[in-house]
Amino acid sequence: MSSSTHAFTQSWTASPELEIEQYLHRHIPLSAAMGVHLKIATPGRVELRAPLAPNINHHETVFGGSACALATLSAWTLVHIGLRHANVDATTVIQRNVMSYEEPIHGDFSAVCTLTDDTVWQRFLKTLDRRGRARITMNAHLLFDDRQVASFEGDFVALRR
Amino acid sequence: MSSSTHAFTQSWTASPELEIEQYLHRHIPLSAAMGVHLKIATPGRVELRAPLAPNINHHETVFGGSACALATLSAWTLVHIGLRHANVDATTVIQRNVMSYEEPIHGDFSAVCTLTDDTVWQRFLKTLDRRGRARITMNAHLLFDDRQVASFEGDFVALRR
Repeated sequence: MSSSTHAFTQSWTASPELEIEQYLHRHIPLSAAMGVHLKIATPGRVELRAPLAPNINHHETVFGGSACALATLSAWTLVHIGLRHANVDATTVIQRNVMSYEEPIHGDFSAVCTLTDDTVWQRFLKTLDRRGRARITMNAHLLFDDRQVASFEGDFVALRR
Repeated sequence: MSSSTHAFTQSWTASPELEIEQYLHRHIPLSAAMGVHLKIATPGRVELRAPLAPNINHHETVFGGSACALATLSAWTLVHIGLRHANVDATTVIQRNVMSYEEPIHGDFSAVCTLTDDTVWQRFLKTLDRRGRARITMNAHLLFDDRQVASFEGDFVALRR
């Protein structure tokens, strides 16, 4: 793996939110183009925000591709933080995702991914430890104006380094 | 609807590819940030290309969010071109999508969406004409180095203006 990936797994020096946000902007430039801001980053919850302007479409609502990208980032970030918290050195890739667009998004929006079932997470860590590879399904949702406006389900595969 | 949306449904003056590419860049700024280039735009086939650099991730492959966004754009563009070709004035929104990431994408990539079943398309137009609203499922795939590396299925809803 590249040294930049390793840098992500080192211990945090500043706030984890700021550090991970900078990491995302540097290594996934689309997150910077989208104006992604990491609001909350704990092993149980990740919340990302993005402004409407760089993510707008011809209907003056959020472009579906931006909505999907923000949801993907929230889930990927939660898996990474959880692995780091468990001191597991692994890379994570997305394998499949389903996105449902429930309402048009007329302004700045958030993606929230939470770890709801600790048993599932512990089984994921155990499989990863035993086989060097494990899959987990993560759920996220998008919020606009305090309402859920889209939902995301993604399968992620972690590979121990 | 805004005048900009209407502009899209007027007849083409330059090449349809250039005109629609400019429309996408102007009204969906993320497509410009992604460096999206519209290579083919016919009522039967849309092919979009994007370079790796603005869409890269920390593995130095294409970010899943970019892959999903390019596939979404290819399918949305094909629906729009088809509606325009049929002289139907309608707006199209995405309702749901499934994306499968089959292989990592190590360079510039394409999204190809084709209309494979004309019966389905004609039924979609008929329903839209009769009810003012119709849904269609579109399939697209991503290509890298002449290989399929991801597949996309999206449900789009058109609303007659």
